[in-house]
Amino acid sequence: MTSNSAESIRIIPIGGLGEIGRNCTVIEYGDDAIIIDCGVMFPDAEMFGIDLVIPDFTYVRNNAHRFRAIVVTHGHEDHIGALPYLLCDVNLPVYGTRLTLGLIKSRLTEHGLVEKTEFHEVTHGEILQFGQLDVCTFHVCHSIPGGMGIAIATPAGLVVHTGDFKFDHTPVNDIPPDFQALGDLGRLGVLALLCDSTYADRPGYTPSEHSIYASFDNVFAEASGRIIMSTFASLISRIQQVIEVAHDYGRKVAVVGRSMERNVPMAIELGYLHVPDGVLVDKSEIDRIPHDQMVIICTGSQGEPSAALTRIANDDHRQIKLVPEDTVVLSSTPVPGNEELVNGTINRLFRRGANVIYEKIMPIHVSGHASQEEIKLLLGMIKPRYLIPVHGEYRHLVQQSRLAASVGIPADRTLVAESGDIIELTADSLEVVDHIPAGYVFVDGLGVGDVGAEILRDRRRLADDGVLIAAITVDRHTGELLGEPDLISRGFADHDDPKKILERAASALAAEIRSHVVEEPDWTYLNNKVRTTLGRHLYAQTRRRPMILPVVTEI
Amino acid sequence: MTSNSAESIRIIPIGGLGEIGRNCTVIEYGDDAIIIDCGVMFPDAEMFGIDLVIPDFTYVRNNAHRFRAIVVTHGHEDHIGALPYLLCDVNLPVYGTRLTLGLIKSRLTEHGLVEKTEFHEVTHGEILQFGQLDVCTFHVCHSIPGGMGIAIATPAGLVVHTGDFKFDHTPVNDIPPDFQALGDLGRLGVLALLCDSTYADRPGYTPSEHSIYASFDNVFAEASGRIIMSTFASLISRIQQVIEVAHDYGRKVAVVGRSMERNVPMAIELGYLHVPDGVLVDKSEIDRIPHDQMVIICTGSQGEPSAALTRIANDDHRQIKLVPEDTVVLSSTPVPGNEELVNGTINRLFRRGANVIYEKIMPIHVSGHASQEEIKLLLGMIKPRYLIPVHGEYRHLVQQSRLAASVGIPADRTLVAESGDIIELTADSLEVVDHIPAGYVFVDGLGVGDVGAEILRDRRRLADDGVLIAAITVDRHTGELLGEPDLISRGFADHDDPKKILERAASALAAEIRSHVVEEPDWTYLNNKVRTTLGRHLYAQTRRRPMILPVVTEI
Repeated sequence: MTSNSAESIRIIPIGGLGEIGRNCTVIEYGDDAIIIDCGVMFPDAEMFGIDLVIPDFTYVRNNAHRFRAIVVTHGHEDHIGALPYLLCDVNLPVYGTRLTLGLIKSRLTEHGLVEKTEFHEVTHGEILQFGQLDVCTFHVCHSIPGGMGIAIATPAGLVVHTGDFKFDHTPVNDIPPDFQALGDLGRLGVLALLCDSTYADRPGYTPSEHSIYASFDNVFAEASGRIIMSTFASLISRIQQVIEVAHDYGRKVAVVGRSMERNVPMAIELGYLHVPDGVLVDKSEIDRIPHDQMVIICTGSQGEPSAALTRIANDDHRQIKLVPEDTVVLSSTPVPGNEELVNGTINRLFRRGANVIYEKIMPIHVSGHASQEEIKLLLGMIKPRYLIPVHGEYRHLVQQSRLAASVGIPADRTLVAESGDIIELTADSLEVVDHIPAGYVFVDGLGVGDVGAEILRDRRRLADDGVLIAAITVDRHTGELLGEPDLISRGFADHDDPKKILERAASALAAEIRSHVVEEPDWTYLNNKVRTTLGRHLYAQTRRRPMILPVVTEI
Repeated sequence: MTSNSAESIRIIPIGGLGEIGRNCTVIEYGDDAIIIDCGVMFPDAEMFGIDLVIPDFTYVRNNAHRFRAIVVTHGHEDHIGALPYLLCDVNLPVYGTRLTLGLIKSRLTEHGLVEKTEFHEVTHGEILQFGQLDVCTFHVCHSIPGGMGIAIATPAGLVVHTGDFKFDHTPVNDIPPDFQALGDLGRLGVLALLCDSTYADRPGYTPSEHSIYASFDNVFAEASGRIIMSTFASLISRIQQVIEVAHDYGRKVAVVGRSMERNVPMAIELGYLHVPDGVLVDKSEIDRIPHDQMVIICTGSQGEPSAALTRIANDDHRQIKLVPEDTVVLSSTPVPGNEELVNGTINRLFRRGANVIYEKIMPIHVSGHASQEEIKLLLGMIKPRYLIPVHGEYRHLVQQSRLAASVGIPADRTLVAESGDIIELTADSLEVVDHIPAGYVFVDGLGVGDVGAEILRDRRRLADDGVLIAAITVDRHTGELLGEPDLISRGFADHDDPKKILERAASALAAEIRSHVVEEPDWTYLNNKVRTTLGRHLYAQTRRRPMILPVVTEI
């Protein structure tokens, strides 16, 4: 890569599965660069067998000497989850608030990277110097405490990155937004704003986290038996509210599910979660507490197959067996792609007789992202010369650029970019000057990047119609077929009939090979013959196209 | 199955993938039975390679002599799509309104079943006699014209089935609901009501189809180039509105996409769609009409991979290439499970520079199902003694039973049933007396029912980690391994490293087999040895579990 001109700031969104700039963004000036966030994405339905999707860090690796730090805006997986995959190659100091670092360390422990990494706890308003980049953080509200936005002062001008944010005047276990800092930035003059656009297509304002309290109070007032409350393990403020309402109603709280059991003690220890004495009990005590005095907070609000709530719904949980007086609350919204899983869980909970309360029934979830009026408010306070919408799918970025136009930022000062675009910013220009490979990389088991498009095509094909092995033995000299072809299928068809299908296919294949005996047989020829003969025959019989793998033994 | 008592009505919901009673319901009295609706479901994400899901008709086939008719409430796929799979075995006359029969015939043509089937066009208020069942139909509004509800009079009492419905006072190309008929039924005394509960968890009223008109008018007023409008091909009233607004603005309309090109001419011919002279043009004329005078109505609003809008978004459509002045409207809502596909399509359309209008941006879609206040209204008019919520997932059925309780139908007069439940209804009882296998059957290519749970498990496994063929040759007498094992993988891993992985795995396998030479080798022993040795080795190396298929040749 060419190094950038001394006069310009370069901004490169990296990674993103549909979304742009959420997981990782590079900001450079001269020979100094920092990374903002380093998160994972979750595979979509077509990415068979893939465990995680991480940003393609090739650019960072190739320019490692210029990178000074990783600054993390908040502790959600899509902002911290890829750290193990970058830090194992490129050792950089990590900056974040106390809770963010707590969550990062818990993530890095599994990879044995905590000792090798340098952590810096950041408090809001602090100024960090990374070469010619002066970084100042400011507090923002989101659906996790300890969120921050980042202002980066460079000789070419000031860039502001919002992180994920909403304007919450009554946050839970967190302080309200730092409007003073935003106003100061606006007065200083912001050259460019990178702004969260996740909710850019939602009119109005996102409700406050505190608005959930009234719904929870209703739920507790009505419930005669246990209350089983599932939410995201990182939604510390939601967990706080459950604990408070439980305390009000004289109920005990147990925490169930791996990530929940990990996060809650940590959040308490770091001072982000406040639990009155005696409220929290160990999950082993669930059985000895009367149902009308018990609340269980658990994972599984996304219908994840092995999470606590899913097991409970399937009557497959060791500690918790549902009874008809139980009230189950899904305090969450399904992430796109998870709707079927979540709906299936809700139906199964109802079938077991529980009273299930989900988003459509009662307002028991709010988002952590700014809606349209909040985005306009931010634009009014920051008054950026240029706007780069980030943290959203392409359509959200376009919507944010339209919102900006409606409050007076002309279209030619807004840039809707793609992952890997090198955005060059000067005092009077904003443009994409180049493009680097900065998409995403698949993690499958221990393999990082060894599963690509071809493997996924094969998996798709195998998933659709299964596989058929055609084992044949031929005479190495005459090419003559010895014995009959042996066909083995998996995922193709069952019942009796298909066996006849395979027998007929084997006969057809044998006849075809015997009718075209080739001396000194060419492997390619024979393999193709097997594939085309069987493929045509089976498609005509079944309209299916299993993957056909010939195994030819010469003797 | 035992035949039912002369005093009772038996109701059996059949099929349904999560939903109960939407696709097919059996109603019996004495020796007379009818089928209401005969629809398909669409496979969910875990049903790899499955094309369609149809109800399990075993009960109908085994009792074919008692069945008198199939009465179809309306022409949507989830109510008509399985007819070819039932009629090929059980020849029954089919009853429906003109449009419903038109859509059914178009479906049956592909299966060569039109000539063999007896069709009876039904007009509202007509009384049909099926043995001791007197069936009277009444008009309902839904998102397709020609919808009807069904009242079934038996010596044991009157049963009413709503079909899919909403109360639309200003329907498009359709008449308002027949409130008089509903009132009459209420006065006559309804023993049991089977009621659509799709939207039982939505508060308020579903907006009228006509309310879309104003949004369309806005879109047309703003659009400077072509308007590309995608919706469901069966949403005749939506298509009517597009045609009317197009006419108002002096634009021509072309229809693109297989099902759209099939349905529009049929709806015109049957009198359900009214097109002013000269408005409709052939799709071949699209190129010669100025963009500001053109509207294209197309399929693909669900992001279906081969539909017109998806091809347009991928720049893969023969006739239509997007230009930045184009306005694309998705007049639909994503069916659960299709969210990712639809969002992907919207993002790609935006990337090509089009102005895309979707549900979140503007109210350009309404549902065809009754919300909570409409369900209460229906209950007030029908005043059923018993209620059987149908046409929804379990949670929707539970919600409807709660709505019923709120308007005075006690919980013990409501029955939330499952597919296959035999519901017995008398003048003073409603209960599930038995259960038949009446779930669903997979259609994959030409195969109906030959893909079951085992095949799907194999496909899941193949999709996750691919397949590995281990071809080995052994001496038939000594059991000695001849040569080296040959490993072939698909969908497992690519790049260079995996080749080394396979080489190392082959060596490990060879060593293991050679260290345990067994005379007169047992195939099962050898197959297991190959599977466990390779399985363990590869899991340790990669944390993946490909399906391992040994191919042992003895020579």
